[in-house]
Amino acid sequence: MIIDFIADYYKNVEKYPVRSQVEPGYLQKVLPESAPNNPESMETILQDVQQHIVPGITHCGSIAGFLGEMLSSGFNIVGFNWISSPAATELENIVMDWLGQMIKLPKSFLFSGNGGGVIQGTTCEAILCTLTAARDRVLNKIGRENISKLVVYGSDQTHSGLIPLFLCATIGTTAITAVDPLKPLCDVAKQFGIWVHVDAAYAGSACIFPEFRHFIDGVEGADSFSLNAHKWFFATLDCCCLWATNPEYLKNKATESKPVVDYKDWQITLSRSFRSLKLWFVIRNYGMENLRHFLRSHVNMARLFERLVSGDKRFEVVFPCHFAVVCFRVSPLPVLMDKLKTKYENCLLSEEEQINEFNRELLESINASGKAYMTNVVLGGIYAIRFATGATLTEERHVVVAWTVVLITIKIKLKIFLSLVL
Amino acid sequence: MIIDFIADYYKNVEKYPVRSQVEPGYLQKVLPESAPNNPESMETILQDVQQHIVPGITHCGSIAGFLGEMLSSGFNIVGFNWISSPAATELENIVMDWLGQMIKLPKSFLFSGNGGGVIQGTTCEAILCTLTAARDRVLNKIGRENISKLVVYGSDQTHSGLIPLFLCATIGTTAITAVDPLKPLCDVAKQFGIWVHVDAAYAGSACIFPEFRHFIDGVEGADSFSLNAHKWFFATLDCCCLWATNPEYLKNKATESKPVVDYKDWQITLSRSFRSLKLWFVIRNYGMENLRHFLRSHVNMARLFERLVSGDKRFEVVFPCHFAVVCFRVSPLPVLMDKLKTKYENCLLSEEEQINEFNRELLESINASGKAYMTNVVLGGIYAIRFATGATLTEERHVVVAWTVVLITIKIKLKIFLSLVL
Repeated sequence: MIIDFIADYYKNVEKYPVRSQVEPGYLQKVLPESAPNNPESMETILQDVQQHIVPGITHCGSIAGFLGEMLSSGFNIVGFNWISSPAATELENIVMDWLGQMIKLPKSFLFSGNGGGVIQGTTCEAILCTLTAARDRVLNKIGRENISKLVVYGSDQTHSGLIPLFLCATIGTTAITAVDPLKPLCDVAKQFGIWVHVDAAYAGSACIFPEFRHFIDGVEGADSFSLNAHKWFFATLDCCCLWATNPEYLKNKATESKPVVDYKDWQITLSRSFRSLKLWFVIRNYGMENLRHFLRSHVNMARLFERLVSGDKRFEVVFPCHFAVVCFRVSPLPVLMDKLKTKYENCLLSEEEQINEFNRELLESINASGKAYMTNVVLGGIYAIRFATGATLTEERHVVVAWTVVLITIKIKLKIFLSLVL
Repeated sequence: MIIDFIADYYKNVEKYPVRSQVEPGYLQKVLPESAPNNPESMETILQDVQQHIVPGITHCGSIAGFLGEMLSSGFNIVGFNWISSPAATELENIVMDWLGQMIKLPKSFLFSGNGGGVIQGTTCEAILCTLTAARDRVLNKIGRENISKLVVYGSDQTHSGLIPLFLCATIGTTAITAVDPLKPLCDVAKQFGIWVHVDAAYAGSACIFPEFRHFIDGVEGADSFSLNAHKWFFATLDCCCLWATNPEYLKNKATESKPVVDYKDWQITLSRSFRSLKLWFVIRNYGMENLRHFLRSHVNMARLFERLVSGDKRFEVVFPCHFAVVCFRVSPLPVLMDKLKTKYENCLLSEEEQINEFNRELLESINASGKAYMTNVVLGGIYAIRFATGATLTEERHVVVAWTVVLITIKIKLKIFLSLVL
């Protein structure tokens, strides 16, 4: 019954508004205040799911990873150490080496080298683990009493005179998919013994293309590397793949004495589910060629959208598009800015704020249509609309529809543009 | 195809050895070294699962939670804040209040009071979050520069003269399901402003019985409380339910201005899956009465096993059995100890070590049979065998079989007992 329900859901997914249109507290009004005393039938529960839950979710399903995930929850193994379910540990070893090879990670990151990979829940967990490892590496050198002298570097260099501990380089930032220059960062970090973590949560999977691999050139100088297979590699949540070189911090007496990995020592939690199963399913059921094909199609769709934006003089692409995200906005053309001055005359906004506010309103109307869902980013004072083409089920026709929604929205919402068509 | 596979797996689960019998590295020998270039059929993949994965897992499936989990992965929502999928947040609010009511948590822990609940992955994450909250609460009072003066109390009191920060009381320890006296601990903690977390990972769910609720009497003096629905409440991994009273540390500007919860601020990770769906399924599909019935049957099965052990003079129950775990061992009877002296004469073992070693060997043989899977605990110098009856699919006949396995194993393995039957 549930399988049929899910199949119907996928069949009809295009009919639902992309972003949920409900108001806060909507669910409490329709569900009972306490748990039922007696069993309820699966029909009743699924009716509630259809009627009350589906309208309250944003639709972004993935079929491929779902199948492996289903099997993984069917088995429901606990898998914190090797002995508790050897298949779970060993499949994870194998799949993480596969994926590492696919994106051409240096051998030092693989089990077949002197490193190894683990599937974490999310990047937050991966960062917490590697940061702890980096901290212990430094404290072992300088003594634990010096903990307050440690400093971590992110994108901006804020302190000096302290002991640098950890540098996190990002390959494909969330906001605009920007790429940090890995090689020079690693070169500097090496001089000071700084642990370098490469957060390629979003863009790491693109390295399965030869023409994208250069984005992580220099990774051989890093200590750890992570990418999220649930972001752009067809796996369902949670599936953050983390590799480390020579992960001494992960070793304990028990595992040193036998040829197995006890993954509980590689992560925050003791218990862990059989996540490698879904990654294995994805890789086998697609095959490497097809995976490349699908990711490339996402990149090509982003390029298509970029061309559509660039071809309309009222709009501009704001940040360079490396992967499958396009950041664009309505351009602050003089003829528009004149009208905005009138529109916002009572708001005390600078010109920069006026064009930002105008783009914010446009985005709100696009999303309220329920036909497309875009997000936003504010960077360097510029408000841009963010359009992503990397979802599993996205096709070229959706991109064209999305652009049409942008055009219609801007026309309908503000008649001002009728006089602006250039 | 996968659903049929899982259904067959559950139908045949009793035929598999309970504990996996494979050797380290077995999987690498049978799987290819790199990912396939071309797609493989689901048939091929499932054949591999049956042939190579199933023999490498410990079998402990749960059907009820699996259905909700399946739907949750079908939807694959990200759900870090309210707006991303309102249903996910609101269902979690509702279900956590349901469950809180079922175990009679004080109203101060519920959304309908001034508190609230969140589903974490595991207890490790719950502890990390509450510990961080406790730390910040103290540092706000005493200043961040005093961080090195903080101390955390577990079961043993190791330091004095420092600033007590956090006390973790356990209701149902992993090893022997021991229960800390909550009320006196909270009373002392209150005098010193110590954050008390109640870790009821295993035994919390037993509080749905009136006769077990007394184990958490005094919880109204605690700051936070967690139980793992994936341990003894029919949910699949990961499903750790955490409640906190007046969780100020969880509030931010955004959520204060609107009547919603942004769960990303209640946990380590940003992204989160739709875990409340499986808990909701479990509670509705069983109903409260049935849930009580099943948990009670687990407790009764433990009592049955306890009686079987106590009725045989060669064995003894080592620690009191509160819930669904029995810790027992072969007793160090004089007639046995005499024989053991001969058996271990070249090993330089004390008498205590001899009886422990003998019980260890017995456990190894029980598990090697593949007919039952028991674990061990060493506490106060005593090695005991740990038998748990709280798995979803366990029935009385399994308990009888398990005891028979113990009896047969001891007879076959060591003829010594033939002369010992009293």
